Amino acid sequence: MPQIVTLTTDFGLGSPYLAAMKGVILSINPAVRLVDIAHTVAPQNIRQGALLLAEATTWFPAGTIHVAVIDPGVGTERRIVYAHIGDQQYLAPDNGLLSRLAAKTRPSRIIVLENAEHWLPSVSNTFHGRDIMAPVAAQLSLGMEPDRLGPSISGLVELDWTAPQVERNRIVGEVVWIDGFGNLITDITSAMLVAIADRSRATTEIAGETIRGIDRTYGERVARTLMALVGSSGYLEVAVADGSAAARLSGKSGTQVTVRW
Amino acid sequence: MPQIVTLTTDFGLGSPYLAAMKGVILSINPAVRLVDIAHTVAPQNIRQGALLLAEATTWFPAGTIHVAVIDPGVGTERRIVYAHIGDQQYLAPDNGLLSRLAAKTRPSRIIVLENAEHWLPSVSNTFHGRDIMAPVAAQLSLGMEPDRLGPSISGLVELDWTAPQVERNRIVGEVVWIDGFGNLITDITSAMLVAIADRSRATTEIAGETIRGIDRTYGERVARTLMALVGSSGYLEVAVADGSAAARLSGKSGTQVTVRW
Amino acid sequence: MPQIVTLTTDFGLGSPYLAAMKGVILSINPAVRLVDIAHTVAPQNIRQGALLLAEATTWFPAGTIHVAVIDPGVGTERRIVYAHIGDQQYLAPDNGLLSRLAAKTRPSRIIVLENAEHWLPSVSNTFHGRDIMAPVAAQLSLGMEPDRLGPSISGLVELDWTAPQVERNRIVGEVVWIDGFGNLITDITSAMLVAIADRSRATTEIAGETIRGIDRTYGERVARTLMALVGSSGYLEVAVADGSAAARLSGKSGTQVTVRW
Repeated sequence: MPQIVTLTTDFGLGSPYLAAMKGVILSINPAVRLVDIAHTVAPQNIRQGALLLAEATTWFPAGTIHVAVIDPGVGTERRIVYAHIGDQQYLAPDNGLLSRLAAKTRPSRIIVLENAEHWLPSVSNTFHGRDIMAPVAAQLSLGMEPDRLGPSISGLVELDWTAPQVERNRIVGEVVWIDGFGNLITDITSAMLVAIADRSRATTEIAGETIRGIDRTYGERVARTLMALVGSSGYLEVAVADGSAAARLSGKSGTQVTVRW
Repeated sequence: MPQIVTLTTDFGLGSPYLAAMKGVILSINPAVRLVDIAHTVAPQNIRQGALLLAEATTWFPAGTIHVAVIDPGVGTERRIVYAHIGDQQYLAPDNGLLSRLAAKTRPSRIIVLENAEHWLPSVSNTFHGRDIMAPVAAQLSLGMEPDRLGPSISGLVELDWTAPQVERNRIVGEVVWIDGFGNLITDITSAMLVAIADRSRATTEIAGETIRGIDRTYGERVARTLMALVGSSGYLEVAVADGSAAARLSGKSGTQVTVRW
Repeated sequence: MPQIVTLTTDFGLGSPYLAAMKGVILSINPAVRLVDIAHTVAPQNIRQGALLLAEATTWFPAGTIHVAVIDPGVGTERRIVYAHIGDQQYLAPDNGLLSRLAAKTRPSRIIVLENAEHWLPSVSNTFHGRDIMAPVAAQLSLGMEPDRLGPSISGLVELDWTAPQVERNRIVGEVVWIDGFGNLITDITSAMLVAIADRSRATTEIAGETIRGIDRTYGERVARTLMALVGSSGYLEVAVADGSAAARLSGKSGTQVTVRW
């Protein structure tokens, strides 16, 4: 069974930096299976990368190695870590990029990359994705024990992930993600909504608009209608049937969303 | 020989939804070979997806499994189908997405996906690409018989694909596709043009411009010249040498194109 | 060990042309490992493609086959060539696309593709990537000797790659590449900078701005500060900490950069 290595970066499309990482990995393990997750994370946007990793990586086979390079602090004192979270493995700068994953599932092992013998012989100051993370990922894919990478540590750098306020007849959350359809994904989970006896009478307020009812799927409203529903990842989202809620509401990350019932 | 599964969606670039589908497929068959065809189909644009599938998928090895998720009706009563068309296999919502392929080559087998035993244990209302199509594609790639997916049916949902009017000295067609170079690809086939004795004297009218002659290849005109030629897929196209016909003519899908001789 | 074939084109995202090439390659060698390098090279921009190939391809395992299709002269008299450069193999139109690579490392073998027996049976006038390069790449990946493709030649078409002027206390170069972060990569190499005794006192002039000092990595300046440093490919680059130098300076390819000390 070939080992899978995924790649998530903020390099942009068609970057020679990504090609270099793939070349380094394949030079060490030509049999590895490479999967691109995303390279269009906004430059240096660690929060966006952290959210993406939390949504995208948990569906992969146990033991998959996920390499994430959103690394504004490259070459400074920030650490690079290996982390085992759930049944997945991660390599990333320790700058919060794994903090959304770690907030849901406590990492079972965290190791700081210190043993340079597994890195490229010459390490640049500006591209540790190629010079450190790529060769280490390739070695791990060949079966190297993570213990050989460096010392264990007990925790990762955390980011502040505010949780929605859940009250007796109200939940106040926010938009955390906008998908390719313009759906506004919030941090309000389906579990928080179980208190609502009749979803058809609940209201969702966002950007001055009030949406009546929480629907089951996109096709339940006529085209161009604003709607609220629980999406495929288990979060409340605001959508426009056959359209873009992001365009309609000028919604963006951080926009407040209130559900009342 | 590894089985190939291709993916065509309207999810946009770097979508966690695509990563989730890949993760589900690889969890069931880690040896499968995944090929991305396109994820930049305009959201919910079934016609564009149908045209793309018809151009892009027929070059693959016999038996390749093509998964297409442009699915505005997800969670409603629309069906999901398996179709064997030519020597390729398809999984898609039955919303017209396979209709351009089926208009050229009658499907030899169409099966409605009904047997939930091959799906993810919990199926969301909004993402059947991940919960139904991905696991079914993976099972097919492992050799499962399509008959086990559900009952056979005799036809697919069709879209209205208008054919060019072919007259004695004139063909009236339209632009159906704009490629990455800004070439305007029409629905006028090379077969329709065989009636023209002298291509150098034919004219092509589009957006108020008249192009004299049908050329053989892009390099035959000086840079920035508007030209007509038969492209690599066998359709008449309007191009600008070293430039973009789409930008020059504000051409878009549906723009009328008339060839006279 | 599976053979690797990489693909670099100007087809744009989600192009059916790319899918067709992959389909042709996989039909001949289903076990080949396909790696996308870039498909967002600006249409017909041979120089940009040449720079990208020079940066991106040298990291791959020895013997990797790199197929590059930026081919404004398709169907005219321009040749298609196989070239062995360094330890990598290339297939490309002979239009300068390999000239940046060849300027660094003299090709050890150049062969003109002439033997049509290795091509698709019917070759279009407008898409030699699919009809000639893809099947030839697949045959090479199966072990075919390059000699069977056609006659050897001694040189490739060259483009004019101006070198920086290196003087006693000054180097005048130019921006040749802008990466996804907006960093302006110049043609001034780290080797040219060794003459500088104290980098903290050197100045870099670009677009009317003067930057003091040459830094080691991005994190050494406070956010939004303009800086100069030697990037991961060994070239001097102008960057903005946590920002885009391209946006700040309106920098583009050809912008003059002067280092003084």
